[in-house]
Amino acid sequence: MTWLELALPAWLLRYRKENFFQDLLAGVVVAMMLVPQSMAYAIVAGLPAQYGMYASILPLLAYAAFGTSMTMAVGPVAVTSLMTASALTPLAPPGSASYIVAASLLALISGGMLLACGVLRLGFVAKLLSNPVISGFTSGSSLLILIGQIAPLLGMSASGGSAASTLVSLLENGSTLHGPTALPGLGTLVLLLLARLPSGAGLLLKIVPMLVMLGALVVSAVLHLHESSGVAVVGAISAGLPPLQWPSMSDGHFRALLFPAGTIALVNFVSSISVAQSLALARKEKVNADAELRALGAANVASALSAGFPISGGFARSLVNFAAGAKTPLAGVISALTMALVVGFAAGIFRDLPVAVLAATIVVAVTPAIDVRAFMRAWRYDRADASALAGTALGVIALGVEAGIAIGVALSLASLVWRSSHPHIAVLGRVPFTEHFRNVLRYKTETLPHVLALRIDENLVFANAQAVDERVREEVAQRADIREILLVLSSVSQIDATALDMLLELNRDLSGRGMRLHLAEIKGPVLDRLHQSALPQEFSGKIFLSTHQAFLEFAGSVEDYSI
Amino acid sequence: MTWLELALPAWLLRYRKENFFQDLLAGVVVAMMLVPQSMAYAIVAGLPAQYGMYASILPLLAYAAFGTSMTMAVGPVAVTSLMTASALTPLAPPGSASYIVAASLLALISGGMLLACGVLRLGFVAKLLSNPVISGFTSGSSLLILIGQIAPLLGMSASGGSAASTLVSLLENGSTLHGPTALPGLGTLVLLLLARLPSGAGLLLKIVPMLVMLGALVVSAVLHLHESSGVAVVGAISAGLPPLQWPSMSDGHFRALLFPAGTIALVNFVSSISVAQSLALARKEKVNADAELRALGAANVASALSAGFPISGGFARSLVNFAAGAKTPLAGVISALTMALVVGFAAGIFRDLPVAVLAATIVVAVTPAIDVRAFMRAWRYDRADASALAGTALGVIALGVEAGIAIGVALSLASLVWRSSHPHIAVLGRVPFTEHFRNVLRYKTETLPHVLALRIDENLVFANAQAVDERVREEVAQRADIREILLVLSSVSQIDATALDMLLELNRDLSGRGMRLHLAEIKGPVLDRLHQSALPQEFSGKIFLSTHQAFLEFAGSVEDYSI
Repeated sequence: MTWLELALPAWLLRYRKENFFQDLLAGVVVAMMLVPQSMAYAIVAGLPAQYGMYASILPLLAYAAFGTSMTMAVGPVAVTSLMTASALTPLAPPGSASYIVAASLLALISGGMLLACGVLRLGFVAKLLSNPVISGFTSGSSLLILIGQIAPLLGMSASGGSAASTLVSLLENGSTLHGPTALPGLGTLVLLLLARLPSGAGLLLKIVPMLVMLGALVVSAVLHLHESSGVAVVGAISAGLPPLQWPSMSDGHFRALLFPAGTIALVNFVSSISVAQSLALARKEKVNADAELRALGAANVASALSAGFPISGGFARSLVNFAAGAKTPLAGVISALTMALVVGFAAGIFRDLPVAVLAATIVVAVTPAIDVRAFMRAWRYDRADASALAGTALGVIALGVEAGIAIGVALSLASLVWRSSHPHIAVLGRVPFTEHFRNVLRYKTETLPHVLALRIDENLVFANAQAVDERVREEVAQRADIREILLVLSSVSQIDATALDMLLELNRDLSGRGMRLHLAEIKGPVLDRLHQSALPQEFSGKIFLSTHQAFLEFAGSVEDYSI
Repeated sequence: MTWLELALPAWLLRYRKENFFQDLLAGVVVAMMLVPQSMAYAIVAGLPAQYGMYASILPLLAYAAFGTSMTMAVGPVAVTSLMTASALTPLAPPGSASYIVAASLLALISGGMLLACGVLRLGFVAKLLSNPVISGFTSGSSLLILIGQIAPLLGMSASGGSAASTLVSLLENGSTLHGPTALPGLGTLVLLLLARLPSGAGLLLKIVPMLVMLGALVVSAVLHLHESSGVAVVGAISAGLPPLQWPSMSDGHFRALLFPAGTIALVNFVSSISVAQSLALARKEKVNADAELRALGAANVASALSAGFPISGGFARSLVNFAAGAKTPLAGVISALTMALVVGFAAGIFRDLPVAVLAATIVVAVTPAIDVRAFMRAWRYDRADASALAGTALGVIALGVEAGIAIGVALSLASLVWRSSHPHIAVLGRVPFTEHFRNVLRYKTETLPHVLALRIDENLVFANAQAVDERVREEVAQRADIREILLVLSSVSQIDATALDMLLELNRDLSGRGMRLHLAEIKGPVLDRLHQSALPQEFSGKIFLSTHQAFLEFAGSVEDYSI
């Protein structure tokens, strides 16, 4: 390999000319979608609109250089923008110079964490969140964003830190609805919704948001809506590329940003990887979770260095990129160059754009993410999963995005502990005239009066060692005459140190009461490990290959048993 | 039931006269052990010595009223005393009035949490800690206590927040060793160690600590060691029962104490329940985890109301109680009354007791808890468990007890996530001339060229859904001509919503590529739940009762297959 080959991404070295026009088209279409969305999400993040465009240039190039998904489009997205606002609002007034620096610092820390996790190959941490928790988190935060956009959409004033108090404040201030703001806002909303109706429709519809925004801009400028009617507009934006700089840490916000940066990194990774995987599935490609961590980390660091804020893989945007025919990350490079042209030469034209139009863009973007049917589906299938979904969504709405994600992680882990601490255990009997042993409650079986055979349908680990111990003792206590206790381990792939201690203690106690504890049907790797422990020496009973062999021995003779 | 019967504990209503003398003897012996230990642990907790005795009266009565263990002895113990000091030192100077109030408040909050968990039946949270983590925590904190007692034992001065800096400071200050302090300290140490040597020896040996303490007290008083040689002594203690009061919250420490109170409650419960369970085992009785939570909670609240600090079930003390013949919690009542007599009438006599003697008591009590062999045993059996043990111990020593317990919980949960995210999956083939299907790597089997059969040896949950998905795709990619994919779920007791989504997506993708996905050997409860989901309608393949039936169908005809 030459130095050039090592320095350039693989897709670029293998680039085939015939893909260029499709990549070019997709890149431009995504940029047309990104212009209004990036400004809107900057406002959600508490930043001036142009910072959204700043965060849509270098990060796209960084992801094109390091990412493994051919079609994922990165940039500012709704949830991480909301999390950015929630992390920074306690530290500085939104939109202030100190706030803007802190936003870049947040992207730097979060990106650094993603890079570090990628280098340490911690891609599996994404498993800390189950699908219902991710679904609850997405629905909850989308609803939170939606509620936050009602006031700017209708030109109303609303106060309140929580979703509930914002809603109450909106109802109380109903009379403050500002017609000249609400009219273009609601008009944009209706047009954008109409553009969505023909499902699977042509590409032209994808640039409707851009066209609607330009239309609203012209109307607002011609009618001087801001000056004559007091409609809130984006305001003066000085054209020019974002400044390249290392975010200052002199404000001492570093420590306060560590926890939010971690939660943003987690949400960012979990949502981006699921976007990347579902796109890869459709193209029969593969994404590498650890490489994705590094690429997302690099993209966030790039955002930080160009005055941006935390960015992520966007679902709707990636679908548009894919549908527009993007074949390689060159589409992302084209999007970045298009954004740079807009920011460098045309940013000033957005001065008269009503903020209500951007609010309408956000409302249309986040509404499909509020997925009530996911709850209904989960409820029908598994109440515990449905509760985790609802708990996470309510946590996000009532306590905020960070508390919501913490609740989600806690609920996921609690469900794992709960499930593995409630193992299924069956009392076994022999199916007559066979060598098969089945649950006595489900099958007609034969048992021996002095033998108790239990099949444990779960790995034996610390979380269920006590439950297994208690169940064995209960079953023994319910039966007189038990002398032989057989644990059938056909479903057990692991016995950890805690469970081993439990088995040894159970064995000591049972043998003190004149009973023997035996094991059967141990899998090869489990048996190899047990031979490293004190169990073979200490155990009062035997280790049988099969349940059948154990019963033959317990029965005394084959003849007696087969009667 | 009469009101009296409802109000009194069950053991008291059923009390048999012939147990009285044994309970009386055990209660007095435990009190003789508790007098020096409780003063020593109060000093570990950063409190004046008499507060240890205060914490050894009402809590014992509360536990006798609500506990389910017949023989567990509660009171101040080493680890929770150390955790108390670590929680309070940042808030107030040790021994100050504000510190003493905060200690009671800590007991109140921690006790309230235990009570709440008991009422909510959260006894299963004890499973957040695996045996290796508990062992590492116990060894680490015992070593930490031991290091902290070197300076008072030898009359040296040592500074330093961490174990390492304390050791460095001890080495640097070697010349400050104070002979008149070290002599009675080391003398006590040797006597106490000698008393331990005859293992399983008589009860008289159990009151050796009390006798040694009284001997040292007399020597110190007669020789005026404090006045003449500057030996540190316990100092004036005003005799009298502890004041009954509700701990003041006016210092605003409530929030700062929440996290430490939670970790103390967890450690308290986990260690107490293991003491109670091992004692119950020996007596063939049963303890109820949720009732124990409530009893420990009540005992800690009682400690808080009588100027005490967090208390717990003590292992050594409970063994002594058991060995001394205690039959019922009346022994605990006797211990409490004995302690009340000592505190009420004789507390003043401890004025001249050298602190070094109490330090020797602590060193002898905690040394057996430093269990290096547990690490060796875990290392031989399971490297992951051994690493969790070592990580927790090092965390406690390097970062402190609270960080250590947090690391332990995190390591336990990480091991659970790790284990369930790495499921064992076997490719199956038929054992020739049978209906049995086994791992093709371990057995000589027959397979069909267009069929891939995989047995998944783990519950299908969010933590492993992705791993299973990836493994199926890899196995399919390695084989040409695969048209039928069969998942054998004989070891699967649960399929959560995340895994269900995975199966549906995998099915969609595989059927898009002309393959069918089938399931076999689904357990009854799992199948019942699947029928509530979209799977039966959406699935491209069938649900077979057995792997054999599936192979019969895939083979086209019975004849072809059995060749």
